[in-house]
Amino acid sequence: MSFSYEVLKTDPAGGRCGQLTTPHGVIETPVFMPVGTAATVKALTQDALETLGARIILANTYHLDLRPGHKLIRKLGGLHSFMSWKNAILTDSGGYQVFSLSDLRKITDEGVRFRSHLDGSEHLLTPEKAAEIQLALGADIAMVLDECIETPAPRNIAEAALKRTTHWAQRARNYFLQHAKETGDPQQWQFGIVQGATFADLRRESAQQLLGLNFPGYAVGGLAVGEPHEVTCEMAGEVTALLPQDRPRYLMGVGRPEQLADYVRLGIDMMDCVLPTRAARHACVYTSEGRVLIKNARYMEDQRPLDPNCSCSVCKRYTRAYLRHLFAAGEITAAILATHHNVHFYLDIMRQIREAISFGQLEKFASELHARYNIGPA
Amino acid sequence: MSFSYEVLKTDPAGGRCGQLTTPHGVIETPVFMPVGTAATVKALTQDALETLGARIILANTYHLDLRPGHKLIRKLGGLHSFMSWKNAILTDSGGYQVFSLSDLRKITDEGVRFRSHLDGSEHLLTPEKAAEIQLALGADIAMVLDECIETPAPRNIAEAALKRTTHWAQRARNYFLQHAKETGDPQQWQFGIVQGATFADLRRESAQQLLGLNFPGYAVGGLAVGEPHEVTCEMAGEVTALLPQDRPRYLMGVGRPEQLADYVRLGIDMMDCVLPTRAARHACVYTSEGRVLIKNARYMEDQRPLDPNCSCSVCKRYTRAYLRHLFAAGEITAAILATHHNVHFYLDIMRQIREAISFGQLEKFASELHARYNIGPA
Repeated sequence: MSFSYEVLKTDPAGGRCGQLTTPHGVIETPVFMPVGTAATVKALTQDALETLGARIILANTYHLDLRPGHKLIRKLGGLHSFMSWKNAILTDSGGYQVFSLSDLRKITDEGVRFRSHLDGSEHLLTPEKAAEIQLALGADIAMVLDECIETPAPRNIAEAALKRTTHWAQRARNYFLQHAKETGDPQQWQFGIVQGATFADLRRESAQQLLGLNFPGYAVGGLAVGEPHEVTCEMAGEVTALLPQDRPRYLMGVGRPEQLADYVRLGIDMMDCVLPTRAARHACVYTSEGRVLIKNARYMEDQRPLDPNCSCSVCKRYTRAYLRHLFAAGEITAAILATHHNVHFYLDIMRQIREAISFGQLEKFASELHARYNIGPA
Repeated sequence: MSFSYEVLKTDPAGGRCGQLTTPHGVIETPVFMPVGTAATVKALTQDALETLGARIILANTYHLDLRPGHKLIRKLGGLHSFMSWKNAILTDSGGYQVFSLSDLRKITDEGVRFRSHLDGSEHLLTPEKAAEIQLALGADIAMVLDECIETPAPRNIAEAALKRTTHWAQRARNYFLQHAKETGDPQQWQFGIVQGATFADLRRESAQQLLGLNFPGYAVGGLAVGEPHEVTCEMAGEVTALLPQDRPRYLMGVGRPEQLADYVRLGIDMMDCVLPTRAARHACVYTSEGRVLIKNARYMEDQRPLDPNCSCSVCKRYTRAYLRHLFAAGEITAAILATHHNVHFYLDIMRQIREAISFGQLEKFASELHARYNIGPA
């Protein structure tokens, strides 16, 4: 299997169903990618991920390069082999983690110099280096290094970051095309990342510049970092309106359950977020009736499943009272079960979104999602 | 299904295969019971335990009574229902945990007064109370409250504890027979616990006294708490020689993998130990080639499974290098996978022991087990 992307169906309200083919399987889009930072989705085994129907997961270049190192992973046959995962993988560029986790960042046109959050060691991440590391990891989809800035950002900061992001994208693309095999029988696709903070014209400018580099897919980065949901949607919409219809679009780091359909309506095909897994470890489970903070004493005698409308193996077997007890006792099993449920919940929402599109009912479904959480649609 | 125990085959070297029937299934003995302290075997879901073939697990009365409380568990339908476990459960009396975990213990003939290690609250555990709690929990097999002492113990201390243990066993038996239905269609079996520290005559005296109370099964307690393996075996052998052939014998809190067959040779049918699960969480895995401290840097590039001779799902899928990475990164998945393997390893040793007995080859198998770990047979 080589790479391809095909739109199969579009919805009157916006949004499309598609099929993303990779050397590690076919992925139905829109798709949610569970986050497997250190080559594991926290608290889930690969068997569990397969049972849940995850066809693509995300892994973090920053974490894997610091530990165990991209050279070791390449030596052991690449990320798929290392973690024994036969389905698809997307790796980020490491940029976002450098900006959010590391110390003593110094950004120049060359790249970003930083100290590891693990041991304080000094590293230099350049567009070429990020591409090189990701080629070594061997994920199906790699991302270019971009400059992430805090928001809200002054316009001049956003402009400078946009300029640098385009420049870095050009260098990343050059490195990739020299070192990877993207035609014939490619092993990796490289995606560009549109920046531009919360300025619509900068978003359009960034998209236009990246289109010139002819990426097989495009991401929208630097959103969902604190700005209102309406703004996230507005910016994502500005970008997707300009992107080619026949290439996948990935909105990075989103989102809350009730927001997923909004992004799909804007033409987004791929999303990732730590929310379902991180929230689960903190006893927050998502249900068709809203969020349940399962550690709360009110669930002490609650014999219902986490979500009466859920078909996951956790809801079929365990009660809220039992989950509540496991969290109160600090048991590892609590994280396992809650994570399993939350990832099922997210993947199931995406299944429902794809189904809604197949019936041309995405607008109705998006409204229903918001109603469940008592939050008005964007 | 009601309760019964039947010896099916004895080995020339000592030891027997049997069948323990409970209202929650038939258990082939000798059996190892994974420890599920707080109504969960740490890092394993109930689905995983079923996959592993666990037919009986142990839960701790002390922990469950402090959190979430035996009254809540009874209200929610008992321990099987609470934790959604349809196979058999054995609960200990709480005595050992009171002696090892709680503060400010004060032992009188009435019982033991202690402070919870969780919140400092004061509790009184009596033989009647331990029986009452266990009836509420509703495990298939309950244990009487015994007095656990530190070893090595002076003879006068051991004599006093033995006297009190017999006295408490009488009271526990009376309470149980008044409140439980042990004839007709009983829901619980109550086992006595033989004490006597490391004094052979006291062990015999304790066994003789408990035989008068006509328990359907007998445990050997207060061993494997620091004394040499030879002494554990000597004491267990003194006891099993006196116990009725047609009732199950349970050696509490053992043991290391290479010791399991030694205990079976002495006529032990049931064992439990936190070792496989606790060691797993500390990156110690048991293999057919000995212990592997998987966090060690030497495994960084090791592409072999944890145990090349193991058929468990972890060994079929993952490498030592990957497990090593997960432990180095402090991932929950490390505990899940290592625990799964170690519990499989223990249950598999018991399967091999039962098979060895069926061929009359237990002595040979016991020697092989010791040879693997370079420890001479007792």
